[in-house]
Amino acid sequence: MQNCAVCNHLNDETNSIAKTDYWVVALAPDQGYLGRCYVTLLQHKGSLADLSKEEWADFAEIAKKLEHAVAESFGAQPSNWACMMNNAYQMTPANPHVHWHFRPRYNKSVIVNGLTFDDPLYGHHYDRDQRRTIDSESFQTVRGVLKTAFETS
Amino acid sequence: MQNCAVCNHLNDETNSIAKTDYWVVALAPDQGYLGRCYVTLLQHKGSLADLSKEEWADFAEIAKKLEHAVAESFGAQPSNWACMMNNAYQMTPANPHVHWHFRPRYNKSVIVNGLTFDDPLYGHHYDRDQRRTIDSESFQTVRGVLKTAFETS
Repeated sequence: MQNCAVCNHLNDETNSIAKTDYWVVALAPDQGYLGRCYVTLLQHKGSLADLSKEEWADFAEIAKKLEHAVAESFGAQPSNWACMMNNAYQMTPANPHVHWHFRPRYNKSVIVNGLTFDDPLYGHHYDRDQRRTIDSESFQTVRGVLKTAFETS
Repeated sequence: MQNCAVCNHLNDETNSIAKTDYWVVALAPDQGYLGRCYVTLLQHKGSLADLSKEEWADFAEIAKKLEHAVAESFGAQPSNWACMMNNAYQMTPANPHVHWHFRPRYNKSVIVNGLTFDDPLYGHHYDRDQRRTIDSESFQTVRGVLKTAFETS
C-alpha cells in the first residue's frame, strides 16, 4: 500500500532474518536490547483482529523459532512481545500495519563483536529509552548469528 | 501448579469476562486504561514458544472478540497487546506462566457509571504509571458490558 512506511520496508534485505509466506522477521536498527526484531505482516492489515488462521499459525512458528534463536545464540530469556500500532493513530486517517516488537531479555552481559550488551532492568518492563545504534559490521554479525539459529531451530 | 500466583487466580469469578478451552479473559484490577484485561493460559507454560496449535488458534479468536468488544462498547482503537513474563524472572528459579496484557486505547474521553476515563498519551506507547482502581460497582459495570459484547461479537 502506498503511504504506508511499513509496507515500504518489507523488502529491505539488509536487516532480514527470515521471510515466510505471511511475515517478515527483521533485526531492528535499535539494538538497545540485543536481538531486538520486528515481525511484520506481509499483508497490509490494521489489527490482530484481522489476521487469518494461516497468518496466526505461521506467526506461532516464528515466535517459537525466534525465542529459541535468541536463547541459543545469546542466552536470552524471557522474550518480550508487543503489538501496538499506536504511532499509526497520530495521523488522520490512521493507516496501521500489523507488526510485533520483539525484545529479548538478559540476566547477564553479552559480548558480541567486542560490544557489551547489558539489561539493567532485567525482571522488569523494558525501558523504551534503552536505545543503541551499533556499527554495521556488528549489526551484520548479530543478524547472521540469529538468521542461522532461526533457520536451524 | 503450586507456588504460581497466576495459576491461583485462574478461577477468580469476580473479574471474569470469558473462559475458553485454553484461556481465561479477566478484567484487570487496574483500569487506568478502560477495559484493561489479562488473557491467561489455563495450562502452566512459560513462554509463547511452548503454546500448542490449539492454544494459538483459540487465542486468535479471543483477540478478535476482545478487540471488537472494547471497540463496540467504548470506542477503543487500537488495542495494545503485550506478553512479557518479566516479573517471574525476579525469582530463582523463575516460574513464568503465559499471560497477555491487553490495553485498549482511546482518542476521546469515555464516561462509564459517572467515571471519566482519559488517554492523554493516545498515539504513543502506554504509560505504565497510568493506573486506577475504581469502585466495585463501576468495575462490575465495565465487566458486564465487555462480557456481553465479547459473547455476542
